[in-house]
Order: sequence, then C-alpha cells, then structure tokens
Amino acid sequence: MHHHDLPGDWISAEGPPYPVMNGRCVITVGDLGEFGVVARIAGRLSQGGTVLLGPGDDAAVVSAPDGRVVVTTDLLLEGRHFRRDWSSGYDIGRKAAAQNLSDVVAMGADPTGIVVGLGLPADAAVGWLDDLTDGFRDECDLVGAGVAGGDITRSELVVVAVTALGDLGGRAPVTRSGARPGDVVAITGRLGYAAAGLALLGAGPPELIEPSELIELIDAHRRPEPPYARGPQAAALGATAMLDVSDGLLQDLGHVAAASGIALLLDPGAFTVPAVMREAARLTGTDPLEWVLSGGDDHALAATFPAGVRLPEGWTVVGRAAEGTGVQVSGMSLARGGWDHFRE
Amino acid sequence: MHHHDLPGDWISAEGPPYPVMNGRCVITVGDLGEFGVVARIAGRLSQGGTVLLGPGDDAAVVSAPDGRVVVTTDLLLEGRHFRRDWSSGYDIGRKAAAQNLSDVVAMGADPTGIVVGLGLPADAAVGWLDDLTDGFRDECDLVGAGVAGGDITRSELVVVAVTALGDLGGRAPVTRSGARPGDVVAITGRLGYAAAGLALLGAGPPELIEPSELIELIDAHRRPEPPYARGPQAAALGATAMLDVSDGLLQDLGHVAAASGIALLLDPGAFTVPAVMREAARLTGTDPLEWVLSGGDDHALAATFPAGVRLPEGWTVVGRAAEGTGVQVSGMSLARGGWDHFRE
Repeated sequence: MHHHDLPGDWISAEGPPYPVMNGRCVITVGDLGEFGVVARIAGRLSQGGTVLLGPGDDAAVVSAPDGRVVVTTDLLLEGRHFRRDWSSGYDIGRKAAAQNLSDVVAMGADPTGIVVGLGLPADAAVGWLDDLTDGFRDECDLVGAGVAGGDITRSELVVVAVTALGDLGGRAPVTRSGARPGDVVAITGRLGYAAAGLALLGAGPPELIEPSELIELIDAHRRPEPPYARGPQAAALGATAMLDVSDGLLQDLGHVAAASGIALLLDPGAFTVPAVMREAARLTGTDPLEWVLSGGDDHALAATFPAGVRLPEGWTVVGRAAEGTGVQVSGMSLARGGWDHFRE
Repeated sequence: MHHHDLPGDWISAEGPPYPVMNGRCVITVGDLGEFGVVARIAGRLSQGGTVLLGPGDDAAVVSAPDGRVVVTTDLLLEGRHFRRDWSSGYDIGRKAAAQNLSDVVAMGADPTGIVVGLGLPADAAVGWLDDLTDGFRDECDLVGAGVAGGDITRSELVVVAVTALGDLGGRAPVTRSGARPGDVVAITGRLGYAAAGLALLGAGPPELIEPSELIELIDAHRRPEPPYARGPQAAALGATAMLDVSDGLLQDLGHVAAASGIALLLDPGAFTVPAVMREAARLTGTDPLEWVLSGGDDHALAATFPAGVRLPEGWTVVGRAAEGTGVQVSGMSLARGGWDHFRE
C-alpha cells in the first residue's frame, strides 16, 4: 500500500495540455459526459474470469474462493506520482495497476481484480483515457485479474485511486513479521532500474535518451515489471516474511526487521549492477549501488526463507536474518534515507 | 459507485486554513511524517471482526465467507464533494464511508471492510485527521465492517478514495436489470433531506440555521443515514432490482428502467414531504418535491419486488413496473435533470 513521490523539485504544479491532433478538435471527456465516459471505459475491458459482475451497477462482484480476500489500495496524483509529459496514459494505467497487483502477490496471493477511482479534467482527451483504460486492462491480464469497476469524477489534475483484490488459495498470508534468525534473505525482480530511469528523466529531455539503450531504464520508471508469479511461489515455498520493494530495498527491509524483531545482514557483493545502469550512473554522477539499495518503484519482491529451502531460478540470496535490530550492509554506511510523503 | 458534486458555483478553489487552537501550535500531519500518520490512524481503529489482517502490511485480509466479494469505490475531492468549512473531518469520514457501504448493501450484501486512500495537505491538523479516522471507523462499526487498510500521500487539497467490500451470504447479487412488469417499486430511507440541507448551506451561513430545527437537514447533508439493514433484507425478500439513491430518485430509477427494459410508473402522492422540508423550501423558494424526487446523497434504497411480496415496516411502495421505457410520474413533467460530473 505504498509508493513514493517524484522528487520535490520535479513535482509539477499543473499538467501539460492534452494534445491537439492534426489541428482537428480532440474529443474530450467533457464532451462525452460522465455516463459516456463510463460506457466507453466499460467497452474496452475484458469480460469474465474472476470478475463475476463487472462495471455498471452499485458494486461489482469478484470471486474469492479462499473465503478470505486480500485488499490493497494506492492513491496516485498527477504531478506528484506521475507526469503526463513523462509517461503516456497507457504507461500510467499499467503502472498504477502494477503497483497494487504487486502488493497483492507480496502477500502470497493471486490477484483477482481491481477497481479504479478516476479524477479527470474535463479537457482530457478521450484517446488519452482509452490508453489509460487499456493500461489497467493489460496489466491485469498479465495476472488473470480483471477491472471490475470504478468511479469517475471531475478533477483539476488527474487522480488515480486503484484498489486491488487477491485470493490466497488456501495459503497463509505472508506478512512482514515472520522472519526468524537464521533465515536467508532473497530478492527477485529488478532493483534500481526505475530510480535510474527517473534520474535520467530529471537530468534531461527524453528525446536525447530515447534512441539509446538507456531507454530500458526510463521504461522501467514508466512501467514496472513486478515478478508477479514469484509471490505465490514464495508463499508455497514457505517464505517466512515478504514485501514488495516500493520505497527502496533498505527502507523496506527495515520494516521486515522491525516487524519481525530481528536484524537483516546484507552482502553488498550479492547485488549485480547491470552495464546499462553503470552507464546511467556515469552520466548522472551517481553511485549505481545507491539506486539498487535505495531506489523505489521497481516492485521487486524481497522475502525471507528458512535456511534449508532450495530457491528456484529467479531468486537471489542477498543476506540473512540474525538476532538484533535493523538492516546492516557489510562495510557500508547506512545513512541512506527513505521516502516520506510529508517531508520533502 | 456514484455520487454527485456540489453545485458548480459552490465549488471552492481552495480549502479554508486548518484551525489554530488557543493560539498554540497545532500538530500537523507534516510534523508526524508519513509513518507517524499511518501509526496514528491505525491506533484509532477497531481490531478484529471481519478484518483478519489490518493495516501495516502490503495488503490487508478481509473475510469473504461467501466465496465471492462485493466491491465498490468512490473518489471524493475537497471543494468538489465536500467543503471543510461546511463539514467536520468526522462528518467527511462518516459520509465517505457511508456512501460506499450503501453501495454494498444495495447489492444485497453485508459490508465487511473498507480501505481508504488519503491525500492530505502537510499543514492538515492531526486533530482533524483523528476526526476523519474516527468517522470512517464509527460508520463502519454501524454495519460490523472494519477499516482494513489504506494509503497516505501528500496533496494540495484533501482527497478521499474509499473502497468498500461486502459478503453476499449465499444470496444472488441484486442488480439493476431484474425488474419485471407488474413488480412494485418501493423505497426505504430518507429522500431529499441532504439536498434540502445543501440548499440551506448554499443560501446562508450555518450559524443562522444551527439553532433551528432545520439543522436536521444540514446534518443530513453532512452525514447520510443509509438504511443499511434493508439492503440484505430486500435481497432475502426476493427484490428483483435494487440500487442506492445517490443522484436523485428519478435519475437512479432511470438506470433500473433502462437496464431492466421496462417502464417505472411512480405515484407522486406516495411521497411524503416532512414539515421541516416544507419550511426549508419556503425559505429557499424551492418546490420540496423536487428535493424528494431529484435530490441526491441521502442513500435511500429503491427496489422492485414481485407484486405479491409483503414488505416489512420501513418500506414504502411508490409505484410499479410496466411494459415500456423510462420513469414516469403521474401528472408531472419529467424535465428534471440529473447530475453529470463533466457538465456543470
């Protein structure tokens, strides 16, 4: 249920204008009106599957065969969590869905559906809204979930409130509090990619980067690729604690250490820094390990497992749990900060 | 999943300042910081019941014994859906929860939990946030639901995104599409109270109204009192269609007529206009039946039942379903408008 803001000096006070196509009038959400917008969104969504009753009534109905439902919500504001000049409508839809679906799999659950509260300016282009809707739908399709419903209202800037649901399939939820001394700490998914991409976007116009291999990092900021399947996998393997890395690995593991009442000792040599990230670090004058250890928004999964567990491909052991408190990285200072939404 | 905006000329561009108490410094959410705010909110919530795992992890876990979960969401923006100078934090919390819980019962389900996405200005007083939290909690307590989790972010104005969950208890969801010719149309709960209260607030300063009996109407705008228990009751009685009245009875019944492919014929004589509403209408130069038939936000329930059903106390038959289309009120013009969030 967590995500971080854009850095303070990159927060924009107002969004860019919606594009005019070839000098022709663009149809806006104000032209369609509320019920037209709702009908248009509903018409682009997949039907069936886990969504038993979709948009159009007072509420939706989603399957919950386990008899318990996992639920998480995130509120994203234009200019604070995304910028329309840095991300397309499609990217924003994908990312908003992804960060919620990632929270669901981090409990060891299978995502089933999302609902979306949207605040839209009346002058928002309908084509942009179509892209946003397609982004929600396509990200949900990756995990077999559906867009079950939502709410639309007028707003000065774009507001996206996503709530995701999931099913535990008979497994216990994997919380942050179950790590025990002797457990191994393992990660899966990308670390530092989104932070590097955001640094590149902040450093200069994307046009200079688009043609290069660095675009991989910028795309990682625009659209995270959470390792969805590995959440339920970790639960099935007996993970003792798990979370998705949204604020940065050190800060997020700090929550596991605190909730479990143990220390987590990380080996900095266990982390790999890909060549593209080293290049981005050179260009922006950054230590790339800073991105890996403290960068947010890639939605990797970090979990602890009993020491004897044989981890499948895709997981990397990066440390171990011990008696004590906090997160320690051998030979490194721990003065790295985290994100706090009210202190910038 | 629906609610209406304040009238266009009542929308405020920015909120009033948060109060300074006795000249002392007020603690703000910016002082507490994000994690302090989350801990403070969590500390005021009820534990247990249908919420199996509450705030503090990636996601919450809520019971869903039916094997299906009802889900609905609403996005509320300061200045558009509420004003801090017209409603207390407590009122706003109660109302935001109520309108979502009402959507759940309108499907015939029992509410189980809510999650809340909050956008808060850094200068928001912690006491105001406490009141808001208590409002969410107390409204949920009315129906045995719990506040399961949420998300906090910084925002220029207050943003409240509530998602509510519910359990069908083995019943079929009551949609808008099942009304058949010959069914009776019945309502339960208040109609027009919130609209009358809003008109009074718009007409003058509340200080002039607070001492009078008219405060009942203003309180109805601030805090709806949905007839929660009657939603599952209607489902058990065999309601063929149901919805909660959030945009006004005529407009909302229009959705039932359209979805069911029938006409709904209403008897204006079946509606009672209480004395306090007639007084408010006199003061503001309004036809009070306009409030009853077109006023939103009271979250009454409107349902259709097979003609033979004996309705318990609290339900009032106001018309019947027939072959045809649309909603007709005997002897009245139907030029009444509805709310559309993109056309003001």
